[in-house]
Order: sequence, then C-alpha cells, then structure tokens
Amino acid sequence: MERVGIIAKVHTSGIREIIAELYQWLTERQLQVFFDQNTGTLLDHPKEVHPKAKIPGLVDLIIVLGGDGTLLSVARLIGDKEVPILGINLGSLGFLTEVTLAEMYVSLEQIQRNEFVTMRRLLLKASVFREEEHIAEYSCLNDVVITKGALARIIELQACINGQYVMTYKADGLIIGTPTGSTAYNLAAGGPIIHPEMGAIIMTPICPHTLTNRPIVIPDTSVVTLILKSEKEDVFLTLDGQVGFALRYQDNVQVEKAKYTISLIRPPERSYFEILRTKLKWGER
Amino acid sequence: MERVGIIAKVHTSGIREIIAELYQWLTERQLQVFFDQNTGTLLDHPKEVHPKAKIPGLVDLIIVLGGDGTLLSVARLIGDKEVPILGINLGSLGFLTEVTLAEMYVSLEQIQRNEFVTMRRLLLKASVFREEEHIAEYSCLNDVVITKGALARIIELQACINGQYVMTYKADGLIIGTPTGSTAYNLAAGGPIIHPEMGAIIMTPICPHTLTNRPIVIPDTSVVTLILKSEKEDVFLTLDGQVGFALRYQDNVQVEKAKYTISLIRPPERSYFEILRTKLKWGER
Amino acid sequence: MERVGIIAKVHTSGIREIIAELYQWLTERQLQVFFDQNTGTLLDHPKEVHPKAKIPGLVDLIIVLGGDGTLLSVARLIGDKEVPILGINLGSLGFLTEVTLAEMYVSLEQIQRNEFVTMRRLLLKASVFREEEHIAEYSCLNDVVITKGALARIIELQACINGQYVMTYKADGLIIGTPTGSTAYNLAAGGPIIHPEMGAIIMTPICPHTLTNRPIVIPDTSVVTLILKSEKEDVFLTLDGQVGFALRYQDNVQVEKAKYTISLIRPPERSYFEILRTKLKWGER
Amino acid sequence: MERVGIIAKVHTSGIREIIAELYQWLTERQLQVFFDQNTGTLLDHPKEVHPKAKIPGLVDLIIVLGGDGTLLSVARLIGDKEVPILGINLGSLGFLTEVTLAEMYVSLEQIQRNEFVTMRRLLLKASVFREEEHIAEYSCLNDVVITKGALARIIELQACINGQYVMTYKADGLIIGTPTGSTAYNLAAGGPIIHPEMGAIIMTPICPHTLTNRPIVIPDTSVVTLILKSEKEDVFLTLDGQVGFALRYQDNVQVEKAKYTISLIRPPERSYFEILRTKLKWGER
Repeated sequence: MERVGIIAKVHTSGIREIIAELYQWLTERQLQVFFDQNTGTLLDHPKEVHPKAKIPGLVDLIIVLGGDGTLLSVARLIGDKEVPILGINLGSLGFLTEVTLAEMYVSLEQIQRNEFVTMRRLLLKASVFREEEHIAEYSCLNDVVITKGALARIIELQACINGQYVMTYKADGLIIGTPTGSTAYNLAAGGPIIHPEMGAIIMTPICPHTLTNRPIVIPDTSVVTLILKSEKEDVFLTLDGQVGFALRYQDNVQVEKAKYTISLIRPPERSYFEILRTKLKWGER
Repeated sequence: MERVGIIAKVHTSGIREIIAELYQWLTERQLQVFFDQNTGTLLDHPKEVHPKAKIPGLVDLIIVLGGDGTLLSVARLIGDKEVPILGINLGSLGFLTEVTLAEMYVSLEQIQRNEFVTMRRLLLKASVFREEEHIAEYSCLNDVVITKGALARIIELQACINGQYVMTYKADGLIIGTPTGSTAYNLAAGGPIIHPEMGAIIMTPICPHTLTNRPIVIPDTSVVTLILKSEKEDVFLTLDGQVGFALRYQDNVQVEKAKYTISLIRPPERSYFEILRTKLKWGER
Repeated sequence: MERVGIIAKVHTSGIREIIAELYQWLTERQLQVFFDQNTGTLLDHPKEVHPKAKIPGLVDLIIVLGGDGTLLSVARLIGDKEVPILGINLGSLGFLTEVTLAEMYVSLEQIQRNEFVTMRRLLLKASVFREEEHIAEYSCLNDVVITKGALARIIELQACINGQYVMTYKADGLIIGTPTGSTAYNLAAGGPIIHPEMGAIIMTPICPHTLTNRPIVIPDTSVVTLILKSEKEDVFLTLDGQVGFALRYQDNVQVEKAKYTISLIRPPERSYFEILRTKLKWGER
Repeated sequence: MERVGIIAKVHTSGIREIIAELYQWLTERQLQVFFDQNTGTLLDHPKEVHPKAKIPGLVDLIIVLGGDGTLLSVARLIGDKEVPILGINLGSLGFLTEVTLAEMYVSLEQIQRNEFVTMRRLLLKASVFREEEHIAEYSCLNDVVITKGALARIIELQACINGQYVMTYKADGLIIGTPTGSTAYNLAAGGPIIHPEMGAIIMTPICPHTLTNRPIVIPDTSVVTLILKSEKEDVFLTLDGQVGFALRYQDNVQVEKAKYTISLIRPPERSYFEILRTKLKWGER
C-alpha cells in the first residue's frame, strides 16, 4: 500500500479535524494521499486533488468516511479497478461502513501489516433499451429500483428471468437487489436478509396488489428483464436510491450481475451477524 | 324515489347499450333521469344533463356504473346530500360496487318497493395548513395518502393523535384510511381489513424504515395531525389515489372524520365476507 | 379507598422489601391491606390473607406488582367487581403494567386524592360447545387462541361472524384478541395495533396457508363462532397464553365481548403512544 | 431404464385403476416394476413388493403418485442412491409433483427416449446432540422446524452459523428450510421464495417477538447450530412436517446440507415460474 485515496462526506461536524489528522498519520508513514475535489476543500494545501471518478484509478486503497450513502456513491465508480475500500462510519455503525472512527487507526495499522480480510460484494448492472436501442447503463451496489411517482397509481411491470416469463407485477414498484442491498430498501419493503457471501439477486415487489406475491431469491447468474407496461404513469429507474432515470411505456430494463465486484475491508473482530444484531436491535423486543 | 342520477365510466365496452336500456327501464317507470355530462354523451337526446358535481343535489338515488374508482369519484361529491348510491360493477365484483350488472334490475325493483338496506360509510376530511393558513381541504372515501416522489428518498412525517405525539415516521409514505379504504391501498401496504361498520381510522406506513412500525387502528373520533419534516424531497398528498397536492416542508395536514357519511345500497343477498372471500380468493391457497 | 389488595409476582428479586415498604406505607395511612396467599408468604405476620380469586370482592383497589403476565392472571378474576387495578411493573414498562416502581407512591398519592384516570379495557368470553353441550367457559383480557400442537400439521377452522360464514382458516392457528391483546401475540403474528379505547375485536391467523388472508378488525358487538374441522390433529384453546383446553373435531368455540370490563389506573403523565414508542423502540431503526 | 419403482398415496379415489393401467403400460414395455407394500395392495398379484425403504436401492426410476407430502416421504429414503424421481400429482399441480396425471405417459415416453431433464434438490441433515452425545439424525427435503407445543409460550433458541453467534430467537419456533421448502411452511411464516437452483438455506422465525427479526438466506455450505434455551416448555423438532422428536433444555441441533441430493424429473414444458404462477395465483389479485 503506497497510495491512499480519501473520500469523505464533507458536511459532517468535525470532519475537517478528522481529515487533517488522518492526512498527517498517512504522510508520516510515507504514504501518498489523494483527495477527491470535495474532500480536498477541507485541507489548506492538499497536494493531490482529483475528480472523484479518477480516484479509484490512482490509488491502492480508498478510505471512505461518512455513512453507507457515501460508500455507495464510491462503489459505483470502482469499475474494473481492484482497489479495496475501507468504510469508516462517522455516525454509528453502518451495514457497509462497518468500521467506527475509533477503530480507524487500528484498521489502518492492520492494513499496513497486510493483516486484513476483504469481502467481495457483487454489483448489479442495469441496461435500458428503448425501441431496441441501448440508451442507458448503470451499475450499483445496493439495488436497481423501478418505482412510480407520487401521483401515479400502480405500475405494471412484466418480468422475465433468463427469458422465462415470471409474472406481471402490479405494484408501487420493484426492487432488484444484491445481498448487500438486502438490508437497505428491500428490508423496508418486507424482503429477507441475504448473507453477503451469497451469489444471489433478490426481487422484492413494493406494495404488490397481488397479495400472494413474495420476494424471490434467484442465482446471480440470472438475467432479469423488466418491461414497463403502464402507459400513462410517471415511472423511474433509480440506482442505490441516488441516481434516477425516467422510464417510458415499453422500455426494457435488463438487470444482471456486473462484470466487476468491489472489495470491502472487513473490521477485524466483528462478524456480519454482530452488525445485524446491532443495527436491527435484535437483543431487544 | 322519483329522480335518479346516472354516472357511468364511459370508456367501457357495451356501455352505450347498458345506459340506453337502463334509461328506458327508468323512464317506463315514470322516473326522472339525470346524467352527468360524460354519461350524457352516450345517449342521443338525454333531457337532463348536468355537471357531475351537481347530480347529488338533484336526485333521490345515484346509480354508479363502473368500478370502485368510478364510485370513489362520486362519493367525494356527495357532501351533505343524503342521497344513496347504488354501485354497479361493470367488470367483476368490487369492494364498493357490490352489485353486478346481472343483478341491477333486481336491485332496482327492490329499491322501488323500498326493500333495501343501506350501509353508511365514513369519509375522511384532510385539511392542509401552511404557515398557519388553511390552504386546502378535501374529502375522500378510501384514504388520505402522503407519499414521496420516485426520486425522493424516505420522508419524515411527525404524527400526533388528538394532540399527543405518536412518532415521526421514516417511510415511503403514510396511509390514513377508512374501513372502506382498508381493502384498497392499505392492504397492499400490509394493513389489516377493517369491517366497514367500525368507527375506525387506520394509519399504515408504506415501507417504514423502522421495522417495528405497524399499522395502528384508532377511533374515528380522533384528529390526526401530520407535519412534513423532510426539507428537500418532493412529497404529495393524494386522496383516494385520484387527487393530488404538493406538500412543502413544515406543511401540516389534519385528517379527521368528515361531517357527512355516504350511504351505499347493499346487495340483497351478499354479505361483506362473501365479497372478501371472492375478491381475495380465500377459497384457494 | 379504604381497602387495598396486593398481588405480586413473588419470584422477583427484592420483592420482599418492596412489599414490606408498601404495606407500611398503606397501613400508616389507615388503609386495610389484603394479600393473596402467595404474596402473603412474603411478610411475617400479614393479617388479611385470602385466596387470590377472593381478593377482587374484598377491596376497593388492587395493586398488581409484576409484569403484564401477572396482571393478566388477575384481570381474569375480576368478574363483575368494579375494583380498579394499579399495575406496577417490576422490570421495565409493560403494556398493561404502565406504572414503574419509581412512580408507585406518586400514583398512590394521586389515587388517595382521587386525582386519577382509569381506562376501561374490554375482556373476551370464550364458550366451548361439544355436541351442543356447553362444556367450558373462560374470560380473558388479551386473547383467545386456537392453535395446533407441535407435531400437528395445519388445522382447519371454520369461522362465522354473527352467523355469517367468513372463511375456513387453514393455518397454525387463529388469535381472537382485544385491543389490549393487540400488542401481545397478535403483534408477533403480524396483526395491527388497536387503540385500547376501540370497541374492537381482532382476528389474526397464525401462519395462514392462504396467503391472501389478513387480520380482520370487527366491532366488539360481534359474536365469533369457530368450528374445528381437523379430525386428527391435537388442537388447543388457550386464554391469555396462560390457561389451556384440548379441543376435538367439531367443537364449537364462541367468542364475544364479556359482560364486564376491567378498569386500569392510567399513569398520570404517560400517553398510550409513549408506551408504544418505548416498548417498540420507535425512536430507532 | 429397466426397473421402475411405484409408490402411491393409496387413499386416493381411482388410484387402483391408475396403478393397474400404469403397471400394464410399464410391463408391456418390458420394464420390471417394484411396489412398496402399501401400493402393492392395490393390485391382485404384483410380483415385486418390498418395504418402501428398500425401493430406492432396487430401481432406476421411482414414480411417486400423490401429492407433495407423498414425495417428501420418499425423498427422505433416497440416501446415496442416484435414482431419479418422477412426481405425479393426483390432484392439481404441486411444487414437487410437477407432472399431472394427464401428462404422465408423455413424460414416461420421454424418459424412455432419454429426453428428460432432472433438477437436483438439496436435502438438509439435522443432528441432535444431548450432553455431547449424538442421539438422533434425520434428513429432509423441505425443512427442519423447531417449534413449541400448543400450551407452551414462546421458546428461546440460540442460533450460531459456522460457530458465529447470530441471535437468540424468542418465537413460536424456527424454520430451517431448503429452496425446495421455501414454498412450503416458510411461505406461510412470511419467508421469501428461493429458486430451487440456489445453494441456499433459509432461516425463518415463526411469530418472532423481536419485531425486527427477518428471514435470513445463507449459503448451503453453512452449519447452523441451535441450542434450546427454554427450560420448561414442550418443544419439538420436526422434519418436513412428517417426523417429530421431543427436544429438551440445552439440546443442540445441528443443521447442514446433507451429503446427497435428490434428482427430480422436470416436466418438459413447464418452467418453475409457471408452477409459482399457478400455485400462488399470480394472475389474479
């Protein structure tokens, strides 16, 4: 590890001091530090400041400081770069930012000694076809969501898996999620938790009008094809709840596993189940 | 019964013949027939054609032909008029349009002989206050829904009942429904069925992020106050899924029982539970 | 208030000191104190010790110290006695034992000054008929549950409300609950919360095989009739999860509102919603 | 294919004729037919009648005629025999008995021509340890369920996965299911559908008192360890809802993928999703 990228949620109280201290810690250890443009504004004279999208190509490790949302926005930029991510949660624990600020330097020391474990997380790729033309493509770590606007009534979405017809959903929308995303929107919509090591995709309808509809877990080798069958409603494709795209009648959205995964550095002494217990308060009623 | 209003869903196959026949049946019995402007276009020379909103004040009975959506749009126009509604479903059975086309004339004969039962259904009134100013007021038969746009993330909604703080919902939205509305959107969002004779209001969150949130049934004497606490999101108030209003940060929506109820004519030999069984396919897995 | 009954959960750490202190506090104020036989063993020479079932007929107030389970067992003994109950929770807050130990003497002082509010809670009565013979009758505050033994497969239960056929449940069981019981087993089975002021009965199936089944809320003037249609399975009727009775094929269980209610003393400054928020951790994810 | 086993649900109307006809069809094609003892009673002079448990070792194909329950009971006998199963549903479609009676001979002809597809389904193995002694072992195709008796209150079950503590369930019970079992009891308890090709195990609590509990999908390489922490309740282990075993306080139940799978013959022109649509009535509300 020689070059370290730092991407922070800049509107966090105390972030300026945290970044200054981290910068000093890293440079004292002869590590070269790269900031994205937002994070760079937190320091007086940072040397290496680059567009956020360039950071993954420049470094051996990315430290993300913020919440799960900050990490999601970075994950979508990684592409084929093999750079691991250390997610530091500036609030409480996160499902993705599993390391607390208090544990950051211990984790960094372990990384320096090469004593760390990473976990690969699969990403989804969503491609939009309109009249057979490929008009948009996105990747995301949590979920591809097709959902209606507030004034719309239910939407109809015809779903196929590997070319086999599944059903036509009549619902507020549909979540196509990764195991990582299973603890995000999927959970609020009534879906199950999927262990992040699973090679799985989860399809969870949002408020389905067909009461026998249930979330379905399918292999991550599946190709899901969704065709919008509602003519008049305003319907959107959103990625990780952060990026949106307006869909039209008969648009075809194809969702499958992305070619590349991302690599998250695991906290040394915290199992996935401990994070579930803490976040979901399983110790209590 | 001397004056009968007819309001139909005009884009239904065969509706022209159904209306012509019904018109003849009624006029043969010396009944005066009033049409709303849309329905009036289905006949060659209808005598009495009036704006839809005027019909309730002109007649002793309103026959609604269409689906539940058609009846919902009529119910919101009734106000303090005591006129009963006969809902004829042109498709299969409805929760509100409980009489099939095949049963229409039998029902009408019973009504003529004064051998019919009505069921009162409570309506909700939603008032919107912005900076203490009363800026909008609506009534509805199914539900008052506050919900986010497709690109928005979760919304925060502070809820009080009779001035007592309940909680701040973090969710896709919140449904405040009547017993009548309990079998509509509420059911898709995971809420319970409430018998239409109950004097109850149901509050059901849509995809709540607080997993211990549950639908709450409260007395219909309650005043529910909802204050929008999300600053940046696009959030809408919708009534029966048919009318919408854009809400802003700190808008205060007050929901309570409307002053007036509506009166639905019951099918003679069909219990509420039969409709549930049929619509929800309880005979089958 | 002159005569006070005390019924405690005797296997609680520190209970001996709590009862001794409470006894002294009451006698200092010239109040006569009555103990049930279990609680009486906690004191050296209590004067008035009676069978638990006799206490409601002897006193003007019953103080129950324990958890919700302790209070449930007392509620079923009240019958037509009008005596109010003060529920003191020896652990954290309860849905029924809404007053903490720290607040007990403040509550008692308010009761002495006649400055207190009670809330009536409806009870259910369950009557079992076998071959037209009335073979058992129970009352309960939370719920009447018909459920299968561990080795049984699903049970079939034919349900009618006021003589009208509702459906034949195919499920692990069925909960017929009061608003009070809505936050107990009903909540675990997916049912809604019902405000305790509602005159309502909730019917919630346990793991129904018909996936469109949903909890139904009906008026408390309803008579629910359940006929066991499973021939070979072991099936039980339980009351508040505390009393059980083995049912047979074709047994008829009739559930309706009991003739009498119970009267719980409300904590002075705690709304029902505060208890929901605290117990269900609504402040947190 | 030379030797064919036939195992039928004998108490089915018309079964005698179905079996006689099938027997004739097979013998006309020079196939040797083996019956289990129950099924053998349906014929006058069957040649080869053996205990049910011996059938898998004697044949190249087993035809199971009945419902999913009949097939489950056969699946548990297969062990390391590689014999494929053709499940014929004598009623409607089943999740496991995917071939209708009308399609049986077409399927058999395809099998004779070697034009058929099989699908491997994983089985679970459950081992019970009492005071470190291995006292019982079972295998099953749908689910391992630990559940309380009717009179018991909630049970406490400490769960670990691969030695890592997950949580202590407080619930009516816990289902540990295969993808095959996901459409059985798991579905009634609120769990997701898992595609049968997934290498997954699903853990679904039954009526959990911790409202944030959710079904968890884990890799089928996991070892789940469950320790019963309830002292007084009657608690049972059941396998596919067909076999039961009484558990005691501190009993340790270890669940993992069985060493062997079973092989189901797929209907030629029916996708898994078609069966879901049909069984769960996804075409309708």
